[in-house]
Amino acid sequence: MEEKDCIFCKIIAGELPSAKVYEDEHVYAFLDISQVTKGHTLVIPKTHTKNIFETPPEVAKHLFERIPTIANAIRDAYQPLGMNLLNNNERAAEQSVFHLHLHLIPRYGKGDGYSPNWHTHENDYTQDDLQKIAKEINLQIK
Amino acid sequence: MEEKDCIFCKIIAGELPSAKVYEDEHVYAFLDISQVTKGHTLVIPKTHTKNIFETPPEVAKHLFERIPTIANAIRDAYQPLGMNLLNNNERAAEQSVFHLHLHLIPRYGKGDGYSPNWHTHENDYTQDDLQKIAKEINLQIK
Ligand SMILES: [Zn+2]
Ligand SMILES: [Zn+2]
Repeated sequence: MEEKDCIFCKIIAGELPSAKVYEDEHVYAFLDISQVTKGHTLVIPKTHTKNIFETPPEVAKHLFERIPTIANAIRDAYQPLGMNLLNNNERAAEQSVFHLHLHLIPRYGKGDGYSPNWHTHENDYTQDDLQKIAKEINLQIK
Repeated sequence: MEEKDCIFCKIIAGELPSAKVYEDEHVYAFLDISQVTKGHTLVIPKTHTKNIFETPPEVAKHLFERIPTIANAIRDAYQPLGMNLLNNNERAAEQSVFHLHLHLIPRYGKGDGYSPNWHTHENDYTQDDLQKIAKEINLQIK
């Protein structure tokens, strides 16, 4: 399952150090060294998979099944006001390590280290446009 | 399962309109009317749950199991360069509708509507600090 030269596979195997938060048969959770906010954690599947596009449903399922438990542990430890989950796929979406990972970023208020730039475009699309887009995506469901 | 006055429960029930991308026994996916980027989709569990903190593992599992399929359908329809998955929990983390939802935001390059403000703090923590934080969270795993 380990991919040569993947730093997250090496962390799982204990060949590189990490600050481990949680581990079971399917997932490994450890602190992101960038600590965008205190308690910022990465949760990864033990099975190497590049990103969400290449992830088998079984691997996705086992990964997310553990997220409520880990999110609540971070909350119980540090009482953040909220939490963002983020997953970046491909370089154009800021993916830098090519082993699927979910960021759990506890939020403590404005200026805590994270916020999204989010530009809405609701005035650019009619209801008909939206129905057309939804259908085009639906036709690609496999 | 439906929560009174929840707009996402009403969308699932067909009491409010939506541009539906996908539906099965566990999940409902539809376009976010804000269309931060073209094809921006929300995936929600049919079971009402406020956010990740209150989500049973079973519900989390079934939700994420479908994400690779839906992400690939968006990619096959519009060939984005990448994709961000986002989930916001509580108002301090920009949650505005209190029914768990995952944003799938296809990315088309700089200036496409979405980017993160992400401030790293790796110099603020020693390895010992990180080990201490990891342990404090691990002690709260239930
Ligand atoms: Zn790997
Ligand atoms: Zn609801």
